[in-house]
Amino acid sequence: MTEIKLLVEELNNIPWQDKPEGWERPVWRYTQNPIIDRNPLKNVARIFNSAVVPYQGEFIGVFRGETLTGIPYLYLGYSKDGINWHYEEEKIHFVDQEGNDFMPKYAYDPRLIKVEDMYYIIWCTDFYGAALGLAKTTDFKTFVRLDNPFLPFNRNGVFFPKKINNRFILLSRPSDSGHTPFGDIFISESPDLEFWGKHRHLMTKGTNWWESLKIGGGAAPIETTEGWLLFYHGVTGTCNGYVYSMGAAILDNENPSIVKYRCQNFILTPEEWYEERGFVGNVIFPCATLQDGATGRIAIYYGAADSYVGLAFTTVKEIVSYIKANHSIVGDDEEIGIR
Amino acid sequence: MTEIKLLVEELNNIPWQDKPEGWERPVWRYTQNPIIDRNPLKNVARIFNSAVVPYQGEFIGVFRGETLTGIPYLYLGYSKDGINWHYEEEKIHFVDQEGNDFMPKYAYDPRLIKVEDMYYIIWCTDFYGAALGLAKTTDFKTFVRLDNPFLPFNRNGVFFPKKINNRFILLSRPSDSGHTPFGDIFISESPDLEFWGKHRHLMTKGTNWWESLKIGGGAAPIETTEGWLLFYHGVTGTCNGYVYSMGAAILDNENPSIVKYRCQNFILTPEEWYEERGFVGNVIFPCATLQDGATGRIAIYYGAADSYVGLAFTTVKEIVSYIKANHSIVGDDEEIGIR
Repeated sequence: MTEIKLLVEELNNIPWQDKPEGWERPVWRYTQNPIIDRNPLKNVARIFNSAVVPYQGEFIGVFRGETLTGIPYLYLGYSKDGINWHYEEEKIHFVDQEGNDFMPKYAYDPRLIKVEDMYYIIWCTDFYGAALGLAKTTDFKTFVRLDNPFLPFNRNGVFFPKKINNRFILLSRPSDSGHTPFGDIFISESPDLEFWGKHRHLMTKGTNWWESLKIGGGAAPIETTEGWLLFYHGVTGTCNGYVYSMGAAILDNENPSIVKYRCQNFILTPEEWYEERGFVGNVIFPCATLQDGATGRIAIYYGAADSYVGLAFTTVKEIVSYIKANHSIVGDDEEIGIR
Repeated sequence: MTEIKLLVEELNNIPWQDKPEGWERPVWRYTQNPIIDRNPLKNVARIFNSAVVPYQGEFIGVFRGETLTGIPYLYLGYSKDGINWHYEEEKIHFVDQEGNDFMPKYAYDPRLIKVEDMYYIIWCTDFYGAALGLAKTTDFKTFVRLDNPFLPFNRNGVFFPKKINNRFILLSRPSDSGHTPFGDIFISESPDLEFWGKHRHLMTKGTNWWESLKIGGGAAPIETTEGWLLFYHGVTGTCNGYVYSMGAAILDNENPSIVKYRCQNFILTPEEWYEERGFVGNVIFPCATLQDGATGRIAIYYGAADSYVGLAFTTVKEIVSYIKANHSIVGDDEEIGIR
């Protein structure tokens, strides 16, 4: 059996803590969680569901900031260690391709992904209904919005970090106009980020109870020797509301509309106070990872209770082995997903 | 003032009846309605919400046939006069682009539209949720399905009958997974029918009560000297269910994401027994028109009460004058519809 490895660059300053002794699961929390507490900025009550990337030897991030009006916008943040962050006080200013102001009416749950030499932000925006917004930047100073890739209603847009067959690849969850008590992950392609198609069904909500209501893409998939490692969120419904856990699956390297392995167990579920309590209690919502190709270390950033940001760790060997050991395909996930 | 004219080909065998004396509205019903009654085929209980085109000097149509299982499929029909129809007994057989069987799990509310030398069928299909299906044919013998243009959930797909700026143009209504108690019309473009984008919001549900719940594209827009004439459906909610009426608007010739005129009045609403009574009472649902460039005559085919097909008539002068005389723009319909 070949060794399980990350197929990504080195990142020797990745935030890291070793696995605590006696912890038997493949993912463990940072002991100083939450890394982002309430009221992090003058006009922002809560930061959560946010995304980070390595940038010029340090780290940069796009953060969901809930303003005091209750309306969320995106904020830029900087960090030397990936743990302690400071932020621009003004929300990110977007322009259209002619350079004119083009601000979203609201913006939440950003993902930030580098593809080739460009950084892309994809978030949930108002397009006469909740839909995916898309912007690009090279310098984190000018943010140019592109056309919204899809019609409403859609949430949880996640880019792949590289093109496959010269196409951009985008995960999303078609939704409804409310809190969407259903939902599967779909995968789409674009040659140019202007036009999208080749839509395929990727994964159905689970038969396992922790993800029985809906699922949605989380962090950008990570390339490994076993396939694309996807951390996603799975939701169950209870008499007192939704509970969001983190799940994991591995997609085919060449044709990621095919699920190779899917973990029947959640890999992280709300247990700590900052996950159970908050504006929306019982939410773990992964939006980004950092990974080090040299050591196989993975750091997972997740929104907690719509109020905080938490950090968790695993290694490619631990998580991939665990997914394979607890593999259980649901529905026709192994198919290409065309009807 | 220039004369209001259709910018379409002659169709001298268009079905036609003159306007009845004393009828003051711009659209009038065929006196022998419904033109398609219940149980039109051995295994089909009801035909409704269907589309027709001129073909080889006669007429051909794609019909929504509700089978005895209750599941709808598409059926091919032929007519010499556009009024009396006979049908293939077997449902339309679709293949993929390699010629392999590619049948939809269900198929309803087809539109049939000729663009350049190709006939396109667009319908509501199961794509792990209700979405738009798309197929093409030149001979009405081989029907090749293309990729589904959009992610779920979407209904009421309507092609424009010609390309604009070398792009195919498609109207649709983003929906939810149920009976969708909301909905606006959006407009999208494609260079190749493979990838879609440039999504814009076209028209919002109305402030007028007859269309206060949702709207959706109806027949393919008709090119006129005043703009693209669009017959659509508007829905209101009552304590005893939805009521579907027919509305009309005129879109800008060059940039059809801009509404030039919108008629504040419905132009046809359920009144006759075949519109009020049926599987779903109180439904008028236009899906197709025929038009004669020589005389300005327009024949409108509409589904009635999810049980019958009705025919109605107008002329380009009557309907365009009426829309302009009763013009009332809603929301930001006059804008391009980008956010």
